[in-house]
Amino acid sequence: MSYATLQNITELSASRWQEQAKDPRTAQLMSSLVRHLHEFARENALSMEEWFEATEWLSRTGQITNDTRKEFILLSDVLGLSMMLELLHDSKPDEATQNTLLGPFYIPGSPEIPYGGRLPGIGDDDGIPLILSGTVRGLDGEPIAGATIDVWQNDHTGIYEAQMPEGSPVLCRAIQHSRDDGSYMFRTVMPVDYSIPTDGPVGELFAKTDISDVRPAHIHFKVGAEGHPTLVTHIFDRQSTRLESDPVFGARDGLLVDFIEQEAGTAPNGDAIDRPYRVATLDFALV
Amino acid sequence: MSYATLQNITELSASRWQEQAKDPRTAQLMSSLVRHLHEFARENALSMEEWFEATEWLSRTGQITNDTRKEFILLSDVLGLSMMLELLHDSKPDEATQNTLLGPFYIPGSPEIPYGGRLPGIGDDDGIPLILSGTVRGLDGEPIAGATIDVWQNDHTGIYEAQMPEGSPVLCRAIQHSRDDGSYMFRTVMPVDYSIPTDGPVGELFAKTDISDVRPAHIHFKVGAEGHPTLVTHIFDRQSTRLESDPVFGARDGLLVDFIEQEAGTAPNGDAIDRPYRVATLDFALV
Repeated sequence: MSYATLQNITELSASRWQEQAKDPRTAQLMSSLVRHLHEFARENALSMEEWFEATEWLSRTGQITNDTRKEFILLSDVLGLSMMLELLHDSKPDEATQNTLLGPFYIPGSPEIPYGGRLPGIGDDDGIPLILSGTVRGLDGEPIAGATIDVWQNDHTGIYEAQMPEGSPVLCRAIQHSRDDGSYMFRTVMPVDYSIPTDGPVGELFAKTDISDVRPAHIHFKVGAEGHPTLVTHIFDRQSTRLESDPVFGARDGLLVDFIEQEAGTAPNGDAIDRPYRVATLDFALV
Repeated sequence: MSYATLQNITELSASRWQEQAKDPRTAQLMSSLVRHLHEFARENALSMEEWFEATEWLSRTGQITNDTRKEFILLSDVLGLSMMLELLHDSKPDEATQNTLLGPFYIPGSPEIPYGGRLPGIGDDDGIPLILSGTVRGLDGEPIAGATIDVWQNDHTGIYEAQMPEGSPVLCRAIQHSRDDGSYMFRTVMPVDYSIPTDGPVGELFAKTDISDVRPAHIHFKVGAEGHPTLVTHIFDRQSTRLESDPVFGARDGLLVDFIEQEAGTAPNGDAIDRPYRVATLDFALV
């Protein structure tokens, strides 16, 4: 008979899940989870009270979660786990555009805009206008025609459409298809720094630290083309002072872009812009 | 500048929580948690899809939790973590009565019953009558008078009062104080094997395994006396075939008790019992 002792309980629990799981993956994941959880508790001499408090915190994390707010994903993000998994499964060669987090604000089915067009919801007087253009290519350098460029970002006030009430108009998201020479161009607005949600359990954790809750401004992309795996990434302003302290560890060297200031005048897309604006060039290299 | 790479992301995340926490315990626990989570994910090459599914499962685990149902505690129990913590913080000498899990069904404020009295809610014809008696002592062997023996268990149908609708009558729980010679005695009913709740996320996990969800029958105790730390434990029938497969790993060698069968007749507490019943002797040795 083998009952639990401090010496055998970890092996007893891990081997039960290992041996009695119906499939090998469940066996592997559950036994590994048991070992790491036990090791975490032993290593820190976790007290009963701390663990009880943690289970209550985990419960609240589930309870605040709904279709649009995913608090466990946010937790995973701020622990660096989401980014680690991105990197772990990124086996792309160096010359391919780097991927990064999808983030919680993606909305599928954005409206199509033409070459040079403007993202919906951006008015003439909103924020700092930005013209973004570039070419979609394969790793061989050949342009890819008809690639789908799905773009989303926050507006000049820091709001993503996904944070607005349901039924709100389309805001700062669109799809454009690359032209025959692989080129794309659209007008948008400079995205702004914003805080991750801190009114829930993750915010409780942050309140016990001095960790910054401010994400550096960025623009998200999903770029797909037939025969190429879809690239999910975002780009950052190289001048941002928030890159290193990004609470979700999203910044990567290859994703920093220069947003170059321009005088008022006729923009590359033909728009007459009555005040300073910016331009950025961004080529996508798809695997 | 140090942005995330597969090589540095774990250290980057762990050291952020380590260095920016406001108190040393948060620093220790969070950085250790980051390291173990990352190691778990790397070791198993956890896929994005698996992790997303896990976060949805964690959310459901929080959402089914309420004041009386604690699914994260149940999860902790079936992973052997709760029992591990019990053992980790058990520094009692060998001669002290062993502790084990409190379990989810404890209700404070049970009614007092006299020496020899019966647990409320047990009728003459219910299950197999059981007379439980013994002495509360200190480690020096001296009897402890006036010790509080708080007892709770399921009834012969397998139901704990805590599983009944709110406002149900008191069922199978009571408090008795030891007499001047440290002795106690009460009449109850043989507890029965029962299943942990499997209609929630923990049940989903169990469905992927052949792990038994049946706990061996047991009787819970909280025994306290002035100047002694409160003992929380339960006792098991030594004859049970479910001890080794206890889904929450609660059984310990020192907690197995002989429930000895007796012919119908006058029981030790003076009751006339018209069919076979059992008696068990259980001394509590308090630190």
